[in-house]
Amino acid sequence: MAQTPKRPREYGIRFGVLPTGTFNAITDVPGVRVGQITLKQGQTIRTGVTAILPHAGNQFQQKSPAAIYIGNGFGKLMGYSQIEELGTLETPIVLTNTLSVPTAADALIDYTLGQQGNEQVRSVNSVVGETNDGFLNDIRGRHVTKQHVLDALKQAKTGPVDEGNVGAGTGTICFGFKGGIGTSSRKLPASLGGYTVGALVQTNFGGVLQIAGVPIGVALGKYSFKENLDGSCMMVVLTDAPLDARNLKRLAKRAFMGLARTGGIASNGSGDYVIAVSTAYQIPHDTQSSFDEVKILRNDNVSPLFMAAIEATEEAIINSLFAAQTLTGDQGHQVEQLPIDKVIELLKKAGQAK
Amino acid sequence: MAQTPKRPREYGIRFGVLPTGTFNAITDVPGVRVGQITLKQGQTIRTGVTAILPHAGNQFQQKSPAAIYIGNGFGKLMGYSQIEELGTLETPIVLTNTLSVPTAADALIDYTLGQQGNEQVRSVNSVVGETNDGFLNDIRGRHVTKQHVLDALKQAKTGPVDEGNVGAGTGTICFGFKGGIGTSSRKLPASLGGYTVGALVQTNFGGVLQIAGVPIGVALGKYSFKENLDGSCMMVVLTDAPLDARNLKRLAKRAFMGLARTGGIASNGSGDYVIAVSTAYQIPHDTQSSFDEVKILRNDNVSPLFMAAIEATEEAIINSLFAAQTLTGDQGHQVEQLPIDKVIELLKKAGQAK
Amino acid sequence: MAQTPKRPREYGIRFGVLPTGTFNAITDVPGVRVGQITLKQGQTIRTGVTAILPHAGNQFQQKSPAAIYIGNGFGKLMGYSQIEELGTLETPIVLTNTLSVPTAADALIDYTLGQQGNEQVRSVNSVVGETNDGFLNDIRGRHVTKQHVLDALKQAKTGPVDEGNVGAGTGTICFGFKGGIGTSSRKLPASLGGYTVGALVQTNFGGVLQIAGVPIGVALGKYSFKENLDGSCMMVVLTDAPLDARNLKRLAKRAFMGLARTGGIASNGSGDYVIAVSTAYQIPHDTQSSFDEVKILRNDNVSPLFMAAIEATEEAIINSLFAAQTLTGDQGHQVEQLPIDKVIELLKKAGQAK
Amino acid sequence: MAQTPKRPREYGIRFGVLPTGTFNAITDVPGVRVGQITLKQGQTIRTGVTAILPHAGNQFQQKSPAAIYIGNGFGKLMGYSQIEELGTLETPIVLTNTLSVPTAADALIDYTLGQQGNEQVRSVNSVVGETNDGFLNDIRGRHVTKQHVLDALKQAKTGPVDEGNVGAGTGTICFGFKGGIGTSSRKLPASLGGYTVGALVQTNFGGVLQIAGVPIGVALGKYSFKENLDGSCMMVVLTDAPLDARNLKRLAKRAFMGLARTGGIASNGSGDYVIAVSTAYQIPHDTQSSFDEVKILRNDNVSPLFMAAIEATEEAIINSLFAAQTLTGDQGHQVEQLPIDKVIELLKKAGQAK
Repeated sequence: MAQTPKRPREYGIRFGVLPTGTFNAITDVPGVRVGQITLKQGQTIRTGVTAILPHAGNQFQQKSPAAIYIGNGFGKLMGYSQIEELGTLETPIVLTNTLSVPTAADALIDYTLGQQGNEQVRSVNSVVGETNDGFLNDIRGRHVTKQHVLDALKQAKTGPVDEGNVGAGTGTICFGFKGGIGTSSRKLPASLGGYTVGALVQTNFGGVLQIAGVPIGVALGKYSFKENLDGSCMMVVLTDAPLDARNLKRLAKRAFMGLARTGGIASNGSGDYVIAVSTAYQIPHDTQSSFDEVKILRNDNVSPLFMAAIEATEEAIINSLFAAQTLTGDQGHQVEQLPIDKVIELLKKAGQAK
Repeated sequence: MAQTPKRPREYGIRFGVLPTGTFNAITDVPGVRVGQITLKQGQTIRTGVTAILPHAGNQFQQKSPAAIYIGNGFGKLMGYSQIEELGTLETPIVLTNTLSVPTAADALIDYTLGQQGNEQVRSVNSVVGETNDGFLNDIRGRHVTKQHVLDALKQAKTGPVDEGNVGAGTGTICFGFKGGIGTSSRKLPASLGGYTVGALVQTNFGGVLQIAGVPIGVALGKYSFKENLDGSCMMVVLTDAPLDARNLKRLAKRAFMGLARTGGIASNGSGDYVIAVSTAYQIPHDTQSSFDEVKILRNDNVSPLFMAAIEATEEAIINSLFAAQTLTGDQGHQVEQLPIDKVIELLKKAGQAK
Repeated sequence: MAQTPKRPREYGIRFGVLPTGTFNAITDVPGVRVGQITLKQGQTIRTGVTAILPHAGNQFQQKSPAAIYIGNGFGKLMGYSQIEELGTLETPIVLTNTLSVPTAADALIDYTLGQQGNEQVRSVNSVVGETNDGFLNDIRGRHVTKQHVLDALKQAKTGPVDEGNVGAGTGTICFGFKGGIGTSSRKLPASLGGYTVGALVQTNFGGVLQIAGVPIGVALGKYSFKENLDGSCMMVVLTDAPLDARNLKRLAKRAFMGLARTGGIASNGSGDYVIAVSTAYQIPHDTQSSFDEVKILRNDNVSPLFMAAIEATEEAIINSLFAAQTLTGDQGHQVEQLPIDKVIELLKKAGQAK
Repeated sequence: MAQTPKRPREYGIRFGVLPTGTFNAITDVPGVRVGQITLKQGQTIRTGVTAILPHAGNQFQQKSPAAIYIGNGFGKLMGYSQIEELGTLETPIVLTNTLSVPTAADALIDYTLGQQGNEQVRSVNSVVGETNDGFLNDIRGRHVTKQHVLDALKQAKTGPVDEGNVGAGTGTICFGFKGGIGTSSRKLPASLGGYTVGALVQTNFGGVLQIAGVPIGVALGKYSFKENLDGSCMMVVLTDAPLDARNLKRLAKRAFMGLARTGGIASNGSGDYVIAVSTAYQIPHDTQSSFDEVKILRNDNVSPLFMAAIEATEEAIINSLFAAQTLTGDQGHQVEQLPIDKVIELLKKAGQAK
């Protein structure tokens, strides 16, 4: 990728009222790492893998409190029911394309079985999300391999996260424009706990695009009642706030509200899932104690986190659109990127960009 | 109420892309009736009842396909589980204040037992929603009586619906301003079936207000991280599209997305519920046949209805704010109405009002 | 009630493998109290109220971790969604007949508003369960008053619990015989934590009766495919094990498995609900801290509690049948009690009674 | 496998009151086919694949109404959320071991993409269930290949179904004895519609075994509070009754009640899932019409089907135990089969076998 496009914030665009973290990325949550493999080969392969690791330890041995909210379940996400039942995540999270979910899940089994300390593990709940990049990518060819997934996990790092046509977002489409990976974060003021909430999204959905509330889709005439609607959005939300699974599920639901603010409608064909994870503590796989002793945020104190999740998800989605670039792929299909100049002009008129 | 305030559309404000029905009200769905009783007595009573009747027949004998979606469940809605299990609504829907739910439910039993043809009925699933008007209203006094509820049911009529400080919205607060009852509708083009979707809301929630995408709450400095957040929103969505309970639940979820678009965050203390009902067909309580023969819309065709539910709910919420008027109540508490002039000015600047 | 009938255990019947608590009652869970009001007036009134109080303090100020599982939702239980969302119970639990749920809920509001320390309370999530006693009771007459409910709460006490035709079980029917209130408990060995699990049931459902596995319904020819099936079962499960809401929901589901072991089928018309509550700790309504510090049982350690809930519920249901007595009521309807002698004979033959 | 062991019915054992279909197998539902591949190689490989095909057509193009109920979600079943959202099954159902779910899911994609008429398919919701055979099988070796799965699909046939150590049940353990595949069916009398309900189970769970209500586990001393509890049970229920997804979910839940009747407790470590499918009609993937016209059984008429699902599942589980044979596998582990002679003796004493 040549020169990195500017992010919406650099144009003065603001989403909500809370400040971002250092990188305005999911990696602002301490310890979180992201790794991505982009597959852009020949005329037809436009896909990839994005991996998110909540902490640096052995995820199976040190499980993270987690929950999954299903916005619209026309999707193939794997790993739902065990998280719902037990409230913990025991693998990293991997995103890829629809038909490569089994490959990615199998790679997560390889990864887990192969980790030091996991020699006796005989059960692994791989968590894999997806969206369908089958317009630009030869999805039926299933070009993602287990090695690609293992590489994404291996390369995972803290710091800035690549956005746009990368990783699992390489071939995705959003509001009729080129979509991709986007990320954002919010940091609560110290008076509200000082917690960070980070979101990472794989955008591949439709509706009538709104940016910071400005009806861009209407202005560009880029919407319709039946087209540009289908697709999906995978959302991952991490936080260092000490939430248990119940409140993480509530947090996850707020990310879906962030999607709503961009003009997404969760159409019939959408697979809209939010995976929410707390990094504040871990639940050990094995321990001498019969108890988990946890110090969790009271219900009364979660609302600012809800706001943070909404804002970060909204911004992450728009970030994906600003970063994505026009792409040609399978069967000669081409998808244009968001016309940034026109968009900025419209936002300026509305007082939403400088 | 003196002169009726103008509705947002009269200022040129638009929510989404679909046209409204005749009255831009839930009553645009053929056969739907709304009745409201407003209790504004002395210094302390500021509450009421709003009743929605899906059809003119005996609702118990001719049940309507229905579903309830729970956005945030800090509320006392009654009637959830039977609708979830059986997929049908067998009473009108009544909205009131939190502590009057039992009274309203009891009145619905009176109403149902007393209807001709229901002489043998021994089980009634009253459906009552609520929000908490305890700031302006002496809610602990429980001033709603069964007669008030029966009166609301009796007065129900088609045509325009009163908005603002009426019925169950008499004493509610929204985004720190006076809230109330609001309603709106959308009519799909004939090519998409020509169906109508109507929404009616009882607004009593918080967040950072956005009107047609314009960040009004930020501009007016009327928001905070912990205050103005709690509260609730009851949403009722009716449609003449032939949906079964499964797709009605999906439709209901989209109303919650409409709430998200107004800046609501579904805070911890919110009771955000959506009741969705189809008027396209009824399920008879008793019948000779072992079967229900239904002609329902395919999954593939529901997305435009989803969009309609989002738009109508968003507009209904804003309509409630435009109609509501400054009110003083219990303990001398006063809540200001939305400063319409300032708001219109801000919307004009953003190109969202004329 | 004349002489108390013998309980199944006194005949040597055993349900499962775990020992009971002292009273073989829900009140074996320390601090739990039960109060019952039986309404048996004239020829037509056969109903009542059963109240369960998890602890002796102010339930609103000291909320109990709780969950509700819905086995079959054809019922009018009130209070579901707030417990599902927040994981806490803030009123005692009241059971009554179907059409008296609003009255009981209103009484719980009275009770809560009136308690010392609750002067500012403006929102109360009344939890009321029910089954339909409309065959023996003039249910349409709604003879339960708020005072009856308040009396049941007031009379609540620890120690043995009356079973059979008492309280909310006064007029119920189970497997075609007279049903009623039943209770049982299990105490885990110290090696598994020494926790107690108690169940209380209001039995009003059908199927093909099995007692300790013996097919009594078949032997007595008392079953059919369509009759004797409808009805409901309210189940309340309390434990002093430190479970959070997530694991309480899992525990609640096991009570439903206990119902299955008696031959219940959760027919279409059944309202089968389980309310599960832990008495091990409370969540204060108000507190200075932003956190709840909880020491909860790990997932790995809940299975023995699951077994205890299954066994206690199964036994509580059968206890209700052994205690219930033939009753005549509304419209001259009469329901026979279980023919204990024949049943014991059948159980002896099968080696299940002495 | 040498001589086929006798099935419980051949000993005069009866489960419930309804008659079976011709084969007392899931294949009694017209059109349903089952294919199984058993992997028993060397000292360590003891696993396999069981495939269930609801109808003979192209499952993707002619989707079946379906639902999944999660009894206890500690499992890796794939395909849940799309069925929950859309109510349809678009692949055959495959059962295998825990760590081979991705392989099986990938094979189902191969199968679907390769079918005539599916040339444009770019999204496939593979439905794969599993239990963990890691005690007898070298599960970490992941010996199931895509070809094994495709072979199971290819070999699928109507008629009798092999039980015990076959297919996905090759290496499973149930109540401390050798488990496996089991199947059973029920046929309603013509007066109740004459429908057939068939169940197929993969038994790998624990508790205190009960056969036709007789406490075998207690008698054999084969149970404990913490051991023999973990494991899982996959249940598949098919019927030719015209149910929609909502009532199929209710039917699925009754299969879990059947499991409860065998003494299963759905322990913490259990992955207990029920997939329920109707063969009465199909929902076409593509069609000219905007509507699905369906003639479905009314709520009022589903209870006999509920009873049938309970009975068939209970019997299928016991059938798996009677058919399974002592097996030695990985690391020299050996699991004994149910001691049929002793069991029959105990059942005879209880009057439950002849």
